[in-house]
Amino acid sequence: MDTKHDVRMRGFRERADVEEVETLLAAQSAPLPAESVPVAECAGRVLAEAVGADVDVPHFARSAMDGFAVRGEDTFGASAYDPIELEIVGLSLAGHGFAGRVERGQAVRIMTGAPLPEGADAVVMAEVCEERDGRVAVGDAVAPQKHVGKVGEDIRSGDALFGPGRVLRPQDAGLLASVGVAQVPCVRPPRIAMVITGDELLPPGARPAGSKIVDSNSVTLSALVRRDGGAVLPFEIIPDRPEAIAEALQHPEADVVLVSGGSSVGQEDHAPRLVAELGRLDVHGVAMRPSSPAGVGRIGERFVFLLPGNPVSCLCAYEFFAGPTIRALGGRSRRWPHPRVRLPLARKLSSAVGRTDYARVAIEAGRVVPLATSGASILSSTVRASGCVVVPRELEGMAEGEPVEVLLYDDTPGDAS
Amino acid sequence: MDTKHDVRMRGFRERADVEEVETLLAAQSAPLPAESVPVAECAGRVLAEAVGADVDVPHFARSAMDGFAVRGEDTFGASAYDPIELEIVGLSLAGHGFAGRVERGQAVRIMTGAPLPEGADAVVMAEVCEERDGRVAVGDAVAPQKHVGKVGEDIRSGDALFGPGRVLRPQDAGLLASVGVAQVPCVRPPRIAMVITGDELLPPGARPAGSKIVDSNSVTLSALVRRDGGAVLPFEIIPDRPEAIAEALQHPEADVVLVSGGSSVGQEDHAPRLVAELGRLDVHGVAMRPSSPAGVGRIGERFVFLLPGNPVSCLCAYEFFAGPTIRALGGRSRRWPHPRVRLPLARKLSSAVGRTDYARVAIEAGRVVPLATSGASILSSTVRASGCVVVPRELEGMAEGEPVEVLLYDDTPGDAS
Repeated sequence: MDTKHDVRMRGFRERADVEEVETLLAAQSAPLPAESVPVAECAGRVLAEAVGADVDVPHFARSAMDGFAVRGEDTFGASAYDPIELEIVGLSLAGHGFAGRVERGQAVRIMTGAPLPEGADAVVMAEVCEERDGRVAVGDAVAPQKHVGKVGEDIRSGDALFGPGRVLRPQDAGLLASVGVAQVPCVRPPRIAMVITGDELLPPGARPAGSKIVDSNSVTLSALVRRDGGAVLPFEIIPDRPEAIAEALQHPEADVVLVSGGSSVGQEDHAPRLVAELGRLDVHGVAMRPSSPAGVGRIGERFVFLLPGNPVSCLCAYEFFAGPTIRALGGRSRRWPHPRVRLPLARKLSSAVGRTDYARVAIEAGRVVPLATSGASILSSTVRASGCVVVPRELEGMAEGEPVEVLLYDDTPGDAS
Repeated sequence: MDTKHDVRMRGFRERADVEEVETLLAAQSAPLPAESVPVAECAGRVLAEAVGADVDVPHFARSAMDGFAVRGEDTFGASAYDPIELEIVGLSLAGHGFAGRVERGQAVRIMTGAPLPEGADAVVMAEVCEERDGRVAVGDAVAPQKHVGKVGEDIRSGDALFGPGRVLRPQDAGLLASVGVAQVPCVRPPRIAMVITGDELLPPGARPAGSKIVDSNSVTLSALVRRDGGAVLPFEIIPDRPEAIAEALQHPEADVVLVSGGSSVGQEDHAPRLVAELGRLDVHGVAMRPSSPAGVGRIGERFVFLLPGNPVSCLCAYEFFAGPTIRALGGRSRRWPHPRVRLPLARKLSSAVGRTDYARVAIEAGRVVPLATSGASILSSTVRASGCVVVPRELEGMAEGEPVEVLLYDDTPGDAS
C-alpha cells in the first residue's frame, strides 16, 4: 500500500483549487472516436466529421404550388375578368411526373412537389384557375419561373453542410436525410460505470429501515449523465469490500467511472487508495463547499471521479468535474448546461477566500435568496432551490444587492411548482 | 363526400388566425392520465399527483463526519496543545451501528452516515484526533449536537414534497428514492402516430433519384416529438391512397396524429376530407407564412395536425400547433421550449398585417439578421439560422434597430458550429 495516497482517518493535508482541477480535466478530455448513426436517429447527437452534400436538393425542377404548369408567356394579359383558356393535356403528381411536353396553348395539372413537365416554365396557382371540359381558364398572368423550385435551390451538390462538433438539430437531421445520407458519423457517447458503495445502502425503490438508507445518488447521477449525453452502464450496489470495489473501478467498457460514497478519509473509504494503486489519483480533496472530499484520477484510459456520498456533495462534485468531462468526451461544450439569469442578491451570501462555494438559492420577487441549509446532506435544499450560485474562491462572499448569475435547475423557471 | 370540407383544387376561402387556433387547442388539451414509473426512471417526467414523505430522512441520528462519537461535555477544554484522551470502545459504520452505549470518558470510532451510538451526542472530526493503543487524543472541544445529523433534518414524515405538474429534476428523483418511493405517478407521455404520405417519398437513408425525394419530415418531426416528451409510434411511408391514409389516421394507440404531406388543396390531398369524414376538421388554412395550408382536427379523442409537406412549413406548423398540444397532453408547459434572446434587428423584417410570420434569422455581431429565403421548401434556411422570430399579425413588419425576441434553435447559442 502506497501510504503517500492513504489519507484514511488522517484528513486531507492539502486541497486543490477548483480551477486547478478543471484545468487538469480540460487538458485530458477530447471527444471520443466516431460511430455511425442511422440518419433517423442522429438528432441531438454531435457530428464527428464535416458532412457535405453530393446531390442537389431538389434534384429536379418542381412545382411550389398546386395548380397548372404552363408556358408563362401563354398567360400574359390574363386577369380575373379576362381569363385565358388553355388545354389540359395531362397531370404531374409528386413522384409521378408528366411524360410528355407542354406546347403553346397547353397546360398540365400539377401538384406541389411534382416535377415541372418539359416545355413548361411556370406554375399558375389553382386558386386563380377555373377548370371545365378539359380546359382551364387562367385568371392571372405568371412570369416564367413563377412558383417553380429550381434544381439546387435548397442545397447544391458540393455544398458544405455541417462541421465537426455540430449538435444536430431536428431540422439538421431532416436535411441530412434529404441529401441521401444514410449513416451519420457522430461522436460516440461516453459510457459511464457507476460504483455505488456502502453497506448501509438499499436499492432505489426500497423503504429505509434500521440503519439502512436508500441509495439516491445513483438515481440523481443517472439522470445527470443522460442530460449530458452519456450512457449509463448497468450497475449494482457494491459492498464496502476492497476486492469488489477494485473490480468495479476497472469496468472494461467504461470511459468514466463515477464512485459514490467511500471516497473520503474514513476507515471504509477504500476507493482513493484503490484508484492510486490501480492507476493514479491526481486530486483528492478540493477547496470547495460542499464536496471537499471529491477526487479525480485515471485508471487506464478511464476517468475516475470520487464523489462524496452526501447527496448535495455528490451533485456538486458531479457538476464541477464529472459533467464537463462527460460532455467533452461526447464532443459537447464543457460549459454547465443550465439556463442562466442574472439578478440581485436579496441578502449577503457568505463564503470564504480560498474556497469555491456551490450555494443553493431561491428566486423570490426578482431577487436571489440564499437558502439556509445545515449542510451537504440536505438534498431537499436542491429541491426547494431554483438553482445555484457559484461563489469563486477570490471572494469572501457577495453583498446584498449585488447582481449574481444563477444557474437554474429547470429548463424554464416557470416549470417548477 | 361532404363538399363543405372539400377544398381540393379550390383553394382556401377563409383562413383562421394563428391565435384562434392556439386558443382552440389550449381549450381542448389537458394532461393525460397518470402511469406508474419506477423511481430510478422518473427524472425528466411530469408528476401527475402530489407526493409527500411518510418517513423521516434521516430516520436515525447519524454522523456528518468521519471521526469519533463522544459525549460533547467530555471534550470541553480540549485543544491541540492540551488534548483530552478517551477510551475507544467500538466502531459505528454506515449500515453497521455500534450496539453498546458510550459512557463518560469513552469514544466510538464513527464514519460519515453511520448511526450515532446511544450515549454519544456529538462527533469529533478525525482530523483533530490522534489514535494510539486503543485510546484517542481529542485535540478540539465539540459542543453537543456538533457534526450530528438529526432525525428528519432533511425531510420530516408528513412533509409535502412536490405538487402535480412538477417536471422532476435529477435531484427530485433522488429525493423520492430516499423517502422510499418505489413507483412515481407520472403523466403518461402522449403517443404520436406519424402519417407520412406521398408517392414521391423514399424512406430516410435512401438516395434521392428520378422524381423521388427522401422523406425528411419524419426525421425532423420525430426529434421534435422527443424534445416535447412524446413517444413516436412505429410508422411507414403511406401511399397517396385514401383507404391507406384513413386507416393510418385512426391509429388505435395514438393520442396525436401528425400528417405530413397531402394536407393542402391539391388533387392528391386526401387528408383534410378524410379527417372531416372520420371526425371533424376544425381548421384548414391559417393566416400565416409559411404553413398556410396547415389544419387541425379531431378523430375520436385523437388530435390530428395537418402539416404541409414543405419542410419549413412542416417545422413551423409543428411548432405553432402540434408542439404545444403534445407538451400539454404530457403535463408540460405549452410555451415554446426554445431559449430566448432579445436583440436589435440589423435590418427591416417585412410581414403583412393579418398574417403571422415565422422568420428565420441569424445573429451576427449582436444583431438579428433576417435570412433571405425563397420559400417554405428551403430547409437549409433553418439550418443556417440561429433561430426564428415570430412576427405577430398586428404588425406589417419590424423596423431596423427594433429589439426582437429570437427563439434559438440551439440550447446554447455557442453550440452551433
